[in-house]
Amino acid sequence: VAQAPMSAPDAGVREAARAMKMGALGVQIYTNVAGRPLDNPEFRPFWEAMNKTGTPIWLHPSRGASFSDYQTEQKSRYEIWWTFGWSYETAAAMARLVFSKIMDNYPKLKIITHHFGGIVPMLEGRIGPGWDQIGARTSDEDLQAVAKSLKKRPLRYFKENFYTDTAAFSGKPATICGLSFYPTEKIVFASDCPFDPEKGTFYTRETLKILDGLKLPKTKYKAIMHGNLEKITGRKLVK
Amino acid sequence: VAQAPMSAPDAGVREAARAMKMGALGVQIYTNVAGRPLDNPEFRPFWEAMNKTGTPIWLHPSRGASFSDYQTEQKSRYEIWWTFGWSYETAAAMARLVFSKIMDNYPKLKIITHHFGGIVPMLEGRIGPGWDQIGARTSDEDLQAVAKSLKKRPLRYFKENFYTDTAAFSGKPATICGLSFYPTEKIVFASDCPFDPEKGTFYTRETLKILDGLKLPKTKYKAIMHGNLEKITGRKLVK
Repeated sequence: VAQAPMSAPDAGVREAARAMKMGALGVQIYTNVAGRPLDNPEFRPFWEAMNKTGTPIWLHPSRGASFSDYQTEQKSRYEIWWTFGWSYETAAAMARLVFSKIMDNYPKLKIITHHFGGIVPMLEGRIGPGWDQIGARTSDEDLQAVAKSLKKRPLRYFKENFYTDTAAFSGKPATICGLSFYPTEKIVFASDCPFDPEKGTFYTRETLKILDGLKLPKTKYKAIMHGNLEKITGRKLVK
Repeated sequence: VAQAPMSAPDAGVREAARAMKMGALGVQIYTNVAGRPLDNPEFRPFWEAMNKTGTPIWLHPSRGASFSDYQTEQKSRYEIWWTFGWSYETAAAMARLVFSKIMDNYPKLKIITHHFGGIVPMLEGRIGPGWDQIGARTSDEDLQAVAKSLKKRPLRYFKENFYTDTAAFSGKPATICGLSFYPTEKIVFASDCPFDPEKGTFYTRETLKILDGLKLPKTKYKAIMHGNLEKITGRKLVK
């Protein structure tokens, strides 16, 4: 997977094309571009090109300690920016892609979020009936009109318009929650190797142990392990 | 439950005492006090008094649109501050109470977080093996020393030192995840009534339907429904 430089004037479109020609399976981008949201107008050429080519896009969270957790502070303490911030980033980026209508306007986008979309599965109720009431908490903008202009209910985009991966850092209840939230065809295996305490295969072993222990139907298991990624990339990956 | 005014010079200690004398079951505070984190020194009198009296404390998230999701923007769009921000607030506040050693120094605190602690159960892997590596991502401060000075592994505080409630806004996978993450004795029933799309009992009905449908062991079910809250408050609540 190649890195697409979103800060380039064409938002990485040429580099994505070059990488795909060289055999890349897709491109990686981050949840923000130097602090800018992905629905900013300068990134439209990227979404348009990726929609046209069907290039898989891995969407990785990005945040540092300079993103404070409290309005009276200048930095995030105790690495909260990583533990909670990265997962927040993923969810916020998905929301921006939904409400800005990028998902409606470019329906062939193949975006793969990491870590089961971060906090998304746990917040199904807020994204569902909570966001069905969008606008009720806002008086300086007509957010009900925004929601009405979407093609479907906000929650459906989160379930149906994004792919996601299983990297939950050995969290078993979290894995079950993620598997229940997303349709099977949206889920691909990942484990965040080698960023575990051993700097090796701990997360891979644990993720496999959890998935194997769930005794998923064989077709579902194979789809998650490689079948879905083969469909997304159009490549045979396992013999 | 009475509101404890944390902005008062004694951080609401007197009001909490007055309310409890009048028969309140506990006090409510917010995850930040006008943007300030709960581990600021001015709130120590509150933690000390609540630890001494064993007063139950409901910890409610608080955040508005002025808390931006991107460093290049001034406000949070599409009510992301509510949908994701409130749950982030809860997790961040818990982390600050843990790493500042408030939970170590005041071990009798009875803090009840809402909504299964927001995003906490989904992020078990980050709070666990992820935060076991605290310091590895930080060079301007010795966070490993902070973690070593704690009485136990960070993850254990999140599971063992907080109570939580079942308000998941009709999210079934989320409810299962929350119930799996926390020990039974830490969970109390709640439904966020009446903030549902009907402005009535929808969340209550759905939360009951989910919990009833899980066919929990009778003792576990009763504990969540009222037994745990009776223990926390020291009051007989159900005849």
